[in-house]
Amino acid sequence: MSKKTIKVAVTGASGQIGYALVFRIASGQMFGPDTEIDLSLLELPAALGALQGVVMELEDCAFPLLRSVTTASDPADAFKDVDWAILVGSVPRKKGMERKDLLEINGKIFIDQGQALDRNAKPTCKILVVGNPCNTNAFIAKKVCQNIPAQNFFALTMLDQNRAVAQLAKKAGTPVEQIKNLAIWGNHSLTQYPDFFHAKINGEKLTERIKDEGWLKKEFIETVQKRGAVIIEARGASSAASAANAVIDTVRHLTAPTKEGEWFSVAVSSDGSYGVEKGLMFSFPVISDGKKWSIVTGLNHGDFSAEKIKASEAELLEEKKLVENSLFLV
Amino acid sequence: MSKKTIKVAVTGASGQIGYALVFRIASGQMFGPDTEIDLSLLELPAALGALQGVVMELEDCAFPLLRSVTTASDPADAFKDVDWAILVGSVPRKKGMERKDLLEINGKIFIDQGQALDRNAKPTCKILVVGNPCNTNAFIAKKVCQNIPAQNFFALTMLDQNRAVAQLAKKAGTPVEQIKNLAIWGNHSLTQYPDFFHAKINGEKLTERIKDEGWLKKEFIETVQKRGAVIIEARGASSAASAANAVIDTVRHLTAPTKEGEWFSVAVSSDGSYGVEKGLMFSFPVISDGKKWSIVTGLNHGDFSAEKIKASEAELLEEKKLVENSLFLV
Repeated sequence: MSKKTIKVAVTGASGQIGYALVFRIASGQMFGPDTEIDLSLLELPAALGALQGVVMELEDCAFPLLRSVTTASDPADAFKDVDWAILVGSVPRKKGMERKDLLEINGKIFIDQGQALDRNAKPTCKILVVGNPCNTNAFIAKKVCQNIPAQNFFALTMLDQNRAVAQLAKKAGTPVEQIKNLAIWGNHSLTQYPDFFHAKINGEKLTERIKDEGWLKKEFIETVQKRGAVIIEARGASSAASAANAVIDTVRHLTAPTKEGEWFSVAVSSDGSYGVEKGLMFSFPVISDGKKWSIVTGLNHGDFSAEKIKASEAELLEEKKLVENSLFLV
Repeated sequence: MSKKTIKVAVTGASGQIGYALVFRIASGQMFGPDTEIDLSLLELPAALGALQGVVMELEDCAFPLLRSVTTASDPADAFKDVDWAILVGSVPRKKGMERKDLLEINGKIFIDQGQALDRNAKPTCKILVVGNPCNTNAFIAKKVCQNIPAQNFFALTMLDQNRAVAQLAKKAGTPVEQIKNLAIWGNHSLTQYPDFFHAKINGEKLTERIKDEGWLKKEFIETVQKRGAVIIEARGASSAASAANAVIDTVRHLTAPTKEGEWFSVAVSSDGSYGVEKGLMFSFPVISDGKKWSIVTGLNHGDFSAEKIKASEAELLEEKKLVENSLFLV
């Protein structure tokens, strides 16, 4: 009866990822068995009918922890007093669309949503951006916020981490839970860098167990970078359940103390660590005490890693420049 | 390391319900945090490509409890040594299709799958049928099995129970977890009967709290019976996540001791209780000790309930006759 309550907004809630996500949130997998959930679902006006079907299905689960579900097409309504906002909705890249166009069209959405969060959400609200290009979308939302601090913004790279871990476990022939400290660095894009040098298998240095450095440096990295496209090819639809699962994992990792000696991947506002420009939304190895996160310090990178990280930073700097120019964010 | 392992087959695994279900099974929600899962996914040959995408996404969740995932288009392969089979795949009713045609076309599928289970699954295997018409599909599968006992077959009516509970909670203005002992009787169809007379709200007789008997006897029952169609209308797709959730709930209820004084709904092979023909797959209020289930005995039905239950039995007897004649099951 004296359970904690958390209000969670999910945007794009009737889309594929939204549909895979909201039932897992409502079942208690995101905030645990002692937290009741108020779900606030945002959709475009045209999708509110379909969203009503999702609401009915949520009711039809009779989830004991789901205290309420509300819907809105206005971000100001959807973000009222929320503790967490999971920003899933974005405009996907269409045929013939330039990267610049994609950044601009989504940029406008995330300016709107950032401002609505700033005016309506709790100032302690945490924001996790899933909709792509997620790093730069998160950068934009963060940039327009006055009341919500920069360290409350996140972009999803846990899906990339999980994809990388799955590939490494397969290669080494070990269960996935034996692979630790594989961190994604940089942008959730083709330039992302899954740093295998600091990863461990069953406590041992990964590169001692997987000695095929050629595979690690090429096939492995490419498989992780291009996994999304391979899944679209097979399913005829983009990754939904695995993306939703990575959202659950990210929030759980951020809201629980990280195990001693371990870390996880999430894009956060750079504090300048490892020479990454301050304020960029950049994926680092991160630890949490359950409330505050920090970037893992003191990792040494060889030339290979340093170059990859630099390339991903360069891409994010370019994205930043594009959106700052076109959206007058300077 | 000395975790228990359960092998679970899911048919129609790349369909909407399958996609909503397999990730929740793999995350541990069906069998708990101490049971590892071997998933065996069955699909039609034409859907094996899409299914491969689902397998990749399962890998990309890096679920610690998911030990293996295999796929097959031959039921004999898919059901090899399984402990549980969740039979989701079936042919949906198409425009212009008579009920008899639907029963026949699905009947053939469930004869095949029943025989494949009998020859390949563990004799202790439990089978939960979700694909509609689920009661009669389960009846057929049960009928062709020699090695798997009748009491190991189930058909899903938990979705109806959850839908009913949600409506009652809304009407009474109480949280869903205060509604207990609402049982679905009969067929998962328009004749199903959600018995509200024996239900309780916060320990009190439900009919003492919701005194609008007209509503209970008409709008309430119709809302539950027709909920599926209303959701198709809103979503443009049938209930998937809520059906998957009901599958999780059913298996959890069957594999854990039922709380003293409570019960839940599942269609089981009738033992003749309440005058229902022996061997029909009929939804009753059921309790479990975690291993064995039994039908709740000694409930008294007034004329209203008795008539509804009789009508649903009559429908199932007619379905039985249709499939026995057309499929030479006699």
